[in-house]
Amino acid sequence: MPDEALKKFIKNTDFFQGLDEKTCDSIIKNTTSSLFSKGKILFIADEPAQYFYLVRSGYVKLFRETLDGAQAILDILSAGHLLGETAIFQDNTYPYSAEIIETSDIITLPLASLKAELEHSPALAHAFLKHMTKIREKQEKDLEHRSLQNAPQRIGCFLLRLCPLDHKDPVTLHLPYDKTLIAGRLGMQPETFSRALKRLRTETGLEIQGSTITIPCIQTLSDYTCVACSSSFPCKDPHSTDTTEPKRVCNHHQG
Amino acid sequence: MPDEALKKFIKNTDFFQGLDEKTCDSIIKNTTSSLFSKGKILFIADEPAQYFYLVRSGYVKLFRETLDGAQAILDILSAGHLLGETAIFQDNTYPYSAEIIETSDIITLPLASLKAELEHSPALAHAFLKHMTKIREKQEKDLEHRSLQNAPQRIGCFLLRLCPLDHKDPVTLHLPYDKTLIAGRLGMQPETFSRALKRLRTETGLEIQGSTITIPCIQTLSDYTCVACSSSFPCKDPHSTDTTEPKRVCNHHQG
Repeated sequence: MPDEALKKFIKNTDFFQGLDEKTCDSIIKNTTSSLFSKGKILFIADEPAQYFYLVRSGYVKLFRETLDGAQAILDILSAGHLLGETAIFQDNTYPYSAEIIETSDIITLPLASLKAELEHSPALAHAFLKHMTKIREKQEKDLEHRSLQNAPQRIGCFLLRLCPLDHKDPVTLHLPYDKTLIAGRLGMQPETFSRALKRLRTETGLEIQGSTITIPCIQTLSDYTCVACSSSFPCKDPHSTDTTEPKRVCNHHQG
Repeated sequence: MPDEALKKFIKNTDFFQGLDEKTCDSIIKNTTSSLFSKGKILFIADEPAQYFYLVRSGYVKLFRETLDGAQAILDILSAGHLLGETAIFQDNTYPYSAEIIETSDIITLPLASLKAELEHSPALAHAFLKHMTKIREKQEKDLEHRSLQNAPQRIGCFLLRLCPLDHKDPVTLHLPYDKTLIAGRLGMQPETFSRALKRLRTETGLEIQGSTITIPCIQTLSDYTCVACSSSFPCKDPHSTDTTEPKRVCNHHQG
């Protein structure tokens, strides 16, 4: 049985929070939480699936690879996000591979319980459908941005999503993971990312020191970025309003 | 009430075919089917939603626009595909705009019936979840291709999906809609599309006459294209195995 702190974490996530006690307990009764190190592969695409996972802390990369080893990063998930949960609709195989990209606390849940509960809980089905709709919105936004935004704008959007909703200029934030991974998540080569970040600095006055970035004026950054997006800033994108997203931002006045 | 032919069409689509008679009849009882001309806007993103739609014939473009009028094409749907169905999980507003791109027969269905049935039909919830999973797979594939495939490969993939599974070389096919729309669907500018199509011709021996394309050797085309994809040819992508997809392909031996 999971301890109280773990139970509480699970029940506060987007997916579980609307569910009744009984359904929730049935799904999480055989749950464990474990620390995994960077580089650990949780599962490989097309492998038979027994478990789905919930990120408690850290980051997990979802990806697919070609035979030649080229890799497409589909997403990088932070605390509160599920992975592998759709395998029950995909012949019980994983649709992508998943790798830990920094030490992460990962909750392992049995797919069989999820499947069994789905058969008689309309509330769970509804939660699952809402969850799938949010992912669809996020993917549609990704596809839109890859069509309409240039590389500096895509980085700008990534930075804006890291900002707290109640920001005050200037905002200083720390990139949550390696720049090469951010580049991959945004569908760019690392060299493109470096050039684009420099251009974004010129256009919007960013200050960059390693992985610490200061945005002197959010309005300037959002004017530059969001002109090539169908939503206006601050957007109601599921990413940015995700309450389980850890606060990685320190918001201070300088000088 | 829908006539027998319309009922039969609906019940044979991917989404409806697994459902029991009663659930299906409740959703489709107030259904109509109408012809719409090219250019007709079915709905606009963020508008209040009362209906969802099913394509009976023709093509519908799903898109979003920036304030400046730049447009991102999210998808182009053919016969058997649903649109607007997720509005019930999105505050009853449409998540994208939809436009008819050639004369199309469109079935209009009330969202209220879908929502009401969802509350007490686990089978419907299951069908909806399978449907959402397929869309997620398709979008993940799109995102993967935009990271890993060059423009000629993305066109090659588009052509391969139009080929019948039981193809014999050579295959002649007619592009289902305007090249500018195909370019947009693949996330390219029209000029990029023209250049990429020429390169694909050089690399794989395509014969191109307006919107008629002859693929002399499917193996050559798939070798060139699928090397930059995590699936191998023929892929089990939902797009290519969709049984409701109209056959647009004539498969003949030449000479």
